[in-house]
Amino acid sequence: MKFRSFTLSILVLFGISVDNSVSAQEKLVWTEVGNGVWKVSVGKPENYNLLSASGVKPEIAALQKMQKTELVSAKAGIFANIQDGKTYLRFPLQKGEQIYGFGLNFQTIHQRGRILRLHTDHYGNTDNGRTHAPVPFFVSSNGYGIFINSARYLDVYAGSAVRKDSKNPPKIQDRNTDKNWSARPYSDAVEILIPANGVEFYVFSGPGPLEVVRRFNLFNGGGCLPPRWGLGFTQRVERLYNAEQVKNEAQAFADQHFPLDFIGLEPGWQSKSYPCTFEWDNTRFPNPALLVKELGQMGVRLNLWTNPYVSPEASIYPKIAPFTGSHSVWVGAVPDLLKPEARDILFSKFKKDHIDIGISGYKIDEVDGGDSYLWPDVATFPSGISAEQMRQTYGVLMQKYSTELFHQKNSRTYGLIRASNAGGVSFPYVIYNDNYSHQDFITGLINSGFSGVLWTPEVRASKTSEEWLRRMQTVCFSPMAMINAWASATKPWSFPDVADKVKEVALLRMQMMPYWYSEFAKYHFEGTPPFRAMNLETGFFIENKTEKTNSNLEENPYEEAVSKEIKDQYMAGEYLLVAPFFTGQTSRKVVLPKGKWFDFYTGKFAGDGEVITVGSNLGNIPVYVKDGGIIPMMPPLLHAPKAGEKVDLEIRYYGQKNAKYQLYDDDGESYNYEKGEYSWREVTVEKQADGKYFGKISAPAAGKPNTIGKVSWSFMTKDN
Amino acid sequence: MKFRSFTLSILVLFGISVDNSVSAQEKLVWTEVGNGVWKVSVGKPENYNLLSASGVKPEIAALQKMQKTELVSAKAGIFANIQDGKTYLRFPLQKGEQIYGFGLNFQTIHQRGRILRLHTDHYGNTDNGRTHAPVPFFVSSNGYGIFINSARYLDVYAGSAVRKDSKNPPKIQDRNTDKNWSARPYSDAVEILIPANGVEFYVFSGPGPLEVVRRFNLFNGGGCLPPRWGLGFTQRVERLYNAEQVKNEAQAFADQHFPLDFIGLEPGWQSKSYPCTFEWDNTRFPNPALLVKELGQMGVRLNLWTNPYVSPEASIYPKIAPFTGSHSVWVGAVPDLLKPEARDILFSKFKKDHIDIGISGYKIDEVDGGDSYLWPDVATFPSGISAEQMRQTYGVLMQKYSTELFHQKNSRTYGLIRASNAGGVSFPYVIYNDNYSHQDFITGLINSGFSGVLWTPEVRASKTSEEWLRRMQTVCFSPMAMINAWASATKPWSFPDVADKVKEVALLRMQMMPYWYSEFAKYHFEGTPPFRAMNLETGFFIENKTEKTNSNLEENPYEEAVSKEIKDQYMAGEYLLVAPFFTGQTSRKVVLPKGKWFDFYTGKFAGDGEVITVGSNLGNIPVYVKDGGIIPMMPPLLHAPKAGEKVDLEIRYYGQKNAKYQLYDDDGESYNYEKGEYSWREVTVEKQADGKYFGKISAPAAGKPNTIGKVSWSFMTKDN
Repeated sequence: MKFRSFTLSILVLFGISVDNSVSAQEKLVWTEVGNGVWKVSVGKPENYNLLSASGVKPEIAALQKMQKTELVSAKAGIFANIQDGKTYLRFPLQKGEQIYGFGLNFQTIHQRGRILRLHTDHYGNTDNGRTHAPVPFFVSSNGYGIFINSARYLDVYAGSAVRKDSKNPPKIQDRNTDKNWSARPYSDAVEILIPANGVEFYVFSGPGPLEVVRRFNLFNGGGCLPPRWGLGFTQRVERLYNAEQVKNEAQAFADQHFPLDFIGLEPGWQSKSYPCTFEWDNTRFPNPALLVKELGQMGVRLNLWTNPYVSPEASIYPKIAPFTGSHSVWVGAVPDLLKPEARDILFSKFKKDHIDIGISGYKIDEVDGGDSYLWPDVATFPSGISAEQMRQTYGVLMQKYSTELFHQKNSRTYGLIRASNAGGVSFPYVIYNDNYSHQDFITGLINSGFSGVLWTPEVRASKTSEEWLRRMQTVCFSPMAMINAWASATKPWSFPDVADKVKEVALLRMQMMPYWYSEFAKYHFEGTPPFRAMNLETGFFIENKTEKTNSNLEENPYEEAVSKEIKDQYMAGEYLLVAPFFTGQTSRKVVLPKGKWFDFYTGKFAGDGEVITVGSNLGNIPVYVKDGGIIPMMPPLLHAPKAGEKVDLEIRYYGQKNAKYQLYDDDGESYNYEKGEYSWREVTVEKQADGKYFGKISAPAAGKPNTIGKVSWSFMTKDN
Repeated sequence: MKFRSFTLSILVLFGISVDNSVSAQEKLVWTEVGNGVWKVSVGKPENYNLLSASGVKPEIAALQKMQKTELVSAKAGIFANIQDGKTYLRFPLQKGEQIYGFGLNFQTIHQRGRILRLHTDHYGNTDNGRTHAPVPFFVSSNGYGIFINSARYLDVYAGSAVRKDSKNPPKIQDRNTDKNWSARPYSDAVEILIPANGVEFYVFSGPGPLEVVRRFNLFNGGGCLPPRWGLGFTQRVERLYNAEQVKNEAQAFADQHFPLDFIGLEPGWQSKSYPCTFEWDNTRFPNPALLVKELGQMGVRLNLWTNPYVSPEASIYPKIAPFTGSHSVWVGAVPDLLKPEARDILFSKFKKDHIDIGISGYKIDEVDGGDSYLWPDVATFPSGISAEQMRQTYGVLMQKYSTELFHQKNSRTYGLIRASNAGGVSFPYVIYNDNYSHQDFITGLINSGFSGVLWTPEVRASKTSEEWLRRMQTVCFSPMAMINAWASATKPWSFPDVADKVKEVALLRMQMMPYWYSEFAKYHFEGTPPFRAMNLETGFFIENKTEKTNSNLEENPYEEAVSKEIKDQYMAGEYLLVAPFFTGQTSRKVVLPKGKWFDFYTGKFAGDGEVITVGSNLGNIPVYVKDGGIIPMMPPLLHAPKAGEKVDLEIRYYGQKNAKYQLYDDDGESYNYEKGEYSWREVTVEKQADGKYFGKISAPAAGKPNTIGKVSWSFMTKDN
């Protein structure tokens, strides 16, 4: 304000009139649309946006169960106006405040100070906003979140820019004399440009960042609940495999006693691909229905690769052509999924040729980018939706309408998708890509939890046995345990010297299914991401330090400092902290939040609010359990339990605290849970007068599915 | 058309109505605005554009002297409409047609098939449209050029996208069976999206691509004519050097008998930098006027680094603050150069503190990017011009208004700039950056010629003597022979084992000044870029071949092929082909266009329309002269001749053809050439009846400057 009055006096002094190019502050229209969720409307928002594309309904009742909060303090400083035909939003930042999110980033957790253009695309080795899920949502360490409900490419200055009228201005430094001069002065706001004459945004309250994310997820329809088999092991076969080879692959897994729940077919199942016919190649697959049936008898489901681009040689082409975009992708027509006719024609084909014969799901490829492959931004669509908006939402639309097919059959699906966005959280799809940096995969997994998406750090190939094992371990602690052997035909046992350890962790994945399944149920009913950042964990707050590591002015002319953030460990479910090893590491540091943590394998105390160093000599992936951790496990089955199949439970308990755990149960395959056909069983562990621990589990609810057989207890922490 | 009627019949059949989201073709309003130059207006073009920013006047008279051409055939297929609030332009491409340009690219010459977002920025190791000069102009091998006169960020699909209604559709391929399947099907158009409700574009005719470029340059005011001294050698000193050290630096060059025409001071000359005061630091520079005078007595001028961001501690801050943007850069205010008040305040300071005491020019830094440093796209300016438009034109505005100061003094300048754009061709500035790939520097030099900008492959540091020599050689065959020692304090003789070779090429640079100066005069009067691509040379046409080099599907999932284009040799002036060596090369290939070429050093025949291999053993930079090449040279002076100083001329002749050359002459320092104070002297060489060659030069024009002393002749090709 000092500056303004100063300016004014100068103006008076010189008698100069100054243009005011900035339109006045736009009116912000606030509406509470759910417990702790406010919709704010600016100008004339566009009708087509991320939420309308997904069509999901907020889980108002679930939100209602959360802590009641007041309107966030952030409200006061929010500024909006319309300038140059675009909507400008500004959200104030406090000193020390951290912000996370802005979609599926692969190299950074902390977003404060970064500049992003949110744009659906293949991740290209830089976190610049181009990613598979450029979700315009950020979470603050101060306990609020902001979601911009726009399907446009958004320019985000996430606390990078400095306004002359800032009330918290950075100090002026002289580079000639000040050794601490920084090329990045302090910024006190997130600023966003939306290329539209108005926008809706949403503010989510906490109190903590985890509650913010939960509210965001519940408002977006709640997380997906995969079928139990979706959490089992999956193998994608080489792209030109035929039916016999696919059966052999399933048999090989059985012979090796290696878990397997579904096999994925790659382009060769289609009569033509790139562009696609969506029709079976009858030389390689003379009887697909029979194949599905035979695999089913082996306990293995079938998933199909496809992209949505319709070959002019496909039987549906003449019908769908009028409802496709102006530009083709690999000469295939792009269905305008906002035209009901296009959806009917495309998805009727999916239903008849695939789903009716028992296909369990899809891998939907190439709905992200890159620019060289996808329709250009100059393309037009019959529905009138712009190419840009179509790009931002195509992945969500494909998820939505393909999921509907399975819903109609009352049979859950779990598939793979290359692109998603806000509104996609309830669709049972996991994002994957072509990059293959193990480190980036883990950072991606961490970031997925901020943005309402799932991500698989898939395994494809490996230069060494060590790498193979390390990658397999992380994939077993992720939303989908997948080997993607489309190009390499690699098997889990392809590296003999680590084959036993690989099988061990794959079986551990199966044993942990009751835990994973319950955690996904919490994603669905409570909005808690099953895989998420440490930064969402109470007791974990680390200053985002930077360090000047390169003082060579020719290499680093602006003396940029490098962030030293923690981006290689994450939370898996309510209790587990996973800290994977990467190839070549013989030891690593693990940051344990405040509170006691215990080794998952031994139950031994590991630390409390400290940084520990762990050696890789035992070969396991380091996993730590929060004090009071209850991990329900089942026997190491090779396939997920079928609907109605009872399995015995081993309930592990770690630490010293009295504890409670909610164990979820339903049929594991159908959508009957939507009609209340599920139960939560409460597991409690309490310290008795004699110092010993005692566990109990509540009785099965009458008339609800009950898949639990005998229950046994393991009190893992011996040195209580 | 086939598809359309087919669609129609389907619609009739099903009785479905299809939305037409694409607005109809916009009317194109054509106006011939110069010989072979047409302006085309679509919708409602914005008032602020690249040409209005630069304010330059087309050289209509010079255009008139060029060959008269018909309206280009390209006209027929141009399509435009307004969609989603943006202007869409489409320009047809023919089979085999090549396109070049789209600004200062550093890795690619051929632009067909590429996708760019033209956006002023530091070059970030990828040719994606973000560059120091993202000029929206392309040249076709078919002999026309298109320039989009917009100061917006433009999305360009340069023959990458495929329309369903294409009349030249790519063939459908099946990736399952076709080994030649390509992820990049044939595209028959350049498509451009301009975020505005209309635009002006310009069409330039040839007949050849060089004439297209010449027309573009002349329409943009003609190329700049540097002072003679600007083509001499320049050294930038360490950033905190004081006056004494600067004088010592000049003395060291004199002692070493190394050419030197101007020294550049880096940030330390200012009392404060980043942000700037534009005021001398009186501890390091107690008497700047005296320093300029003393250096002048040594034949050395002084150039000043600055960026335009005004420190709140600068004396001009209170006055300029009201006329600056909403956001600061390194806490410095950003002058709104479209406000006359801002210009007056800033440039009056430049005039009084710098130019009036004899400063010869500026190095204007950080007007390009990156996003983290510059004002964000959300910034606003008092003039009402958007942040985006300001970003696209700031470099041009700084050039324009700083040049005006020198023009007022009738004293030419030659400086450095980090950003330019269309409209900037007449401003005497050379672009530089922080990248340091020698290969990319050469490709940048090649591309500069397509876009009306100059580029220096400056030398800063070196890991080896070999690298130092190789870099020095290319800098001597470029628009500005500069060592940029701001961070390293390296001297030309810092690598003793190549010091002689380095001095040799630096002196060669000086000897060639009459040639360089005449070639720049042709840039000014005829629009011919002094440094340019082989692709602009008659007799050079190479199919842009691609090759599949990586068949590993995990590393290259879309089986992308790699371009094998020629991007390491270029034309320097009318006659010279320069083919630099890079560190580590012991030999290299040189593509000689059709026609005879001769070795620059020996005069020997080198080849004719063929690929030759040249060894690096002689240590020289390979240079070839076109048949009939006339190269005027002067003695190896250490400083450029002063105004009125006569120098002797050695005229070299190469090859066998009878030849003519236009030698330019003026005072070399003032703008008097604008009032006709210049002359062209015609040099002719003809074969006589006795088989010997005879050269003559026309008499000096009466009443015009004449700087030529004695003339001698060297007939370099002995085996005629």
